[in-house]
Amino acid sequence: MNIIIDAMGGDNAPKEILLGAAAAVREYGVQITAVGRRRDIEACARENGIDMAGITVADASETIEMCDEPTAAIRGKKDSSMVVGLRMLAAGEGDAFVSAGSTGALLAGATLIVKRLRGVKRPAIGTVIPGAKQPYLLLDSGANVECRPEMLSAFATMGSVYMEKVMGRANPSVGLVNNGAEETKGTPAYVEAHRLLKYNKNIRFAGNVEPKDVPQGNVDVVVCDGFTGNVILKLTEGVAKMLVGEIKNVFMADLKSKLAYLMVKGGMKDFKKKLDADEHGGALMMGVTKPVIKAHGSSNAKAFKNAVRQAKLCVESGAVESMREKLAAVAQTEEAGA
Amino acid sequence: MNIIIDAMGGDNAPKEILLGAAAAVREYGVQITAVGRRRDIEACARENGIDMAGITVADASETIEMCDEPTAAIRGKKDSSMVVGLRMLAAGEGDAFVSAGSTGALLAGATLIVKRLRGVKRPAIGTVIPGAKQPYLLLDSGANVECRPEMLSAFATMGSVYMEKVMGRANPSVGLVNNGAEETKGTPAYVEAHRLLKYNKNIRFAGNVEPKDVPQGNVDVVVCDGFTGNVILKLTEGVAKMLVGEIKNVFMADLKSKLAYLMVKGGMKDFKKKLDADEHGGALMMGVTKPVIKAHGSSNAKAFKNAVRQAKLCVESGAVESMREKLAAVAQTEEAGA
Repeated sequence: MNIIIDAMGGDNAPKEILLGAAAAVREYGVQITAVGRRRDIEACARENGIDMAGITVADASETIEMCDEPTAAIRGKKDSSMVVGLRMLAAGEGDAFVSAGSTGALLAGATLIVKRLRGVKRPAIGTVIPGAKQPYLLLDSGANVECRPEMLSAFATMGSVYMEKVMGRANPSVGLVNNGAEETKGTPAYVEAHRLLKYNKNIRFAGNVEPKDVPQGNVDVVVCDGFTGNVILKLTEGVAKMLVGEIKNVFMADLKSKLAYLMVKGGMKDFKKKLDADEHGGALMMGVTKPVIKAHGSSNAKAFKNAVRQAKLCVESGAVESMREKLAAVAQTEEAGA
Repeated sequence: MNIIIDAMGGDNAPKEILLGAAAAVREYGVQITAVGRRRDIEACARENGIDMAGITVADASETIEMCDEPTAAIRGKKDSSMVVGLRMLAAGEGDAFVSAGSTGALLAGATLIVKRLRGVKRPAIGTVIPGAKQPYLLLDSGANVECRPEMLSAFATMGSVYMEKVMGRANPSVGLVNNGAEETKGTPAYVEAHRLLKYNKNIRFAGNVEPKDVPQGNVDVVVCDGFTGNVILKLTEGVAKMLVGEIKNVFMADLKSKLAYLMVKGGMKDFKKKLDADEHGGALMMGVTKPVIKAHGSSNAKAFKNAVRQAKLCVESGAVESMREKLAAVAQTEEAGA
């Protein structure tokens, strides 16, 4: 298996990206094609003693920056690491593409170069988020600020496939984010989405999930528009950060509390690990014809390695092919039901 | 000052409501009119030894239940504690109304009986939420799942008045919830709302506030539609509950960790108090002509007492009159700018 990576994307590129890639070669036995400025990549590997066995470099002279307008960057920077990598993926020169670069550009590039699956109007970003019971998949976590009901139904179908095939959840459940359990709740688009999800035979619909219950992790797939998804993803991080900061203050108050911290250090580490999004790799661009994964912009080697593992799982499990089949089945049901 | 209260609303009515009211009489020197079934109220006061000095009972035979359809309940249950109380407020027989009953019914009742301020299309629910730096006001926190840009601008105006007059914040700042700092971010309604807020001369607009920064409490007023506001309000509670549960597990793991808890017990109590929404009273129905306050449905005596204090602050500060003046000024600006 050959995973193509964007060696120039992200805050810590290329060093942490290459370190993560080298670790992935060792631990998962994958081949890596690292796309980016050959000179920079080789110099970085040399300076940091990174073992490049199993890693092939594909030269690309440009880099897409975080501030670039996404679609313009994809169309304009033809020799950027992201565009070259996505073209290699589309041409079958690798099995998946992983980048820690601009989310917007990666989404635009995946759509324009790798193309959408039939039945997908706009790809969604699917992110696995830590929950009390177990992690859950949130989609759309930020790609589309406005979503038509059919899009939410497609997200549910794809998210269910992902949780079953990649995360190994048997018969995953789907919840629609809404401000109440009743099917009449929410905007007209959410009322219609509820109806479509109810009749979507390829998913196990658990009904609306209220925001207070989302962090419980009782449903496997949490579906919403990208504006709401961005709020859920980022607010969860923000509230966690605030509370962890407050707890830290409690422990740092005096000598006694510092001693108390030492007594629960192990438990606190497990707690932090459970909250650590890096454990779950990156976000999948759901609805394109091949696996395209967005690693966190601030990825360190561990986070990037986990994103590569996630790419490997996507390839091995045939998740994208399953999504293609299920989406076709939904399209038939909707045509028959219309 | 006379605060009218719904003695029958909420999970713990009438006992906790009356206990809270009696405490408010003692601590804040207000007069209370408790609306509800006289027999039940008097029996409850007798059984629980509640001092009814300063509390007058106004008889009302019916109760609006949580499951009642809001508008139908307000129109149909003419002798309910909520409708009778709101009518007394509208008739000038009291200065504010506080209820822990159905949010939807209270919103419908406030709109139909107490009436809206000029320039307010739909009232919003404003809720004060604990933040890292300081508490912030979130509105709309759930009344209107869809909001036009002008509504968001009115919310900003009213929220600023509330934070200044009732919470004592000098020159409060307003943030618009959005998935990025740039003014082009969000749905078309949010882009337009950003423009209106920028030219709203009665507020200090701090630009978009990203969801991850909302819990920081850096802005005084956080404006969004009621669907998003419900997500922010309830997800904040949900994530906090999840994390507090996890921390509890860390402390309960073994004898050593239990001992550690005892060593930081004081700090943890302060931490919990900071997170405790009950400290801030209830939610104000923003945009009606007199103060109408929704206490938590699960209010205990302390939470209800704080909601009465909030009502008192609203009355004393003349917040509603200020909102009326500012909204009129905004209407003029918008007409001039159109």
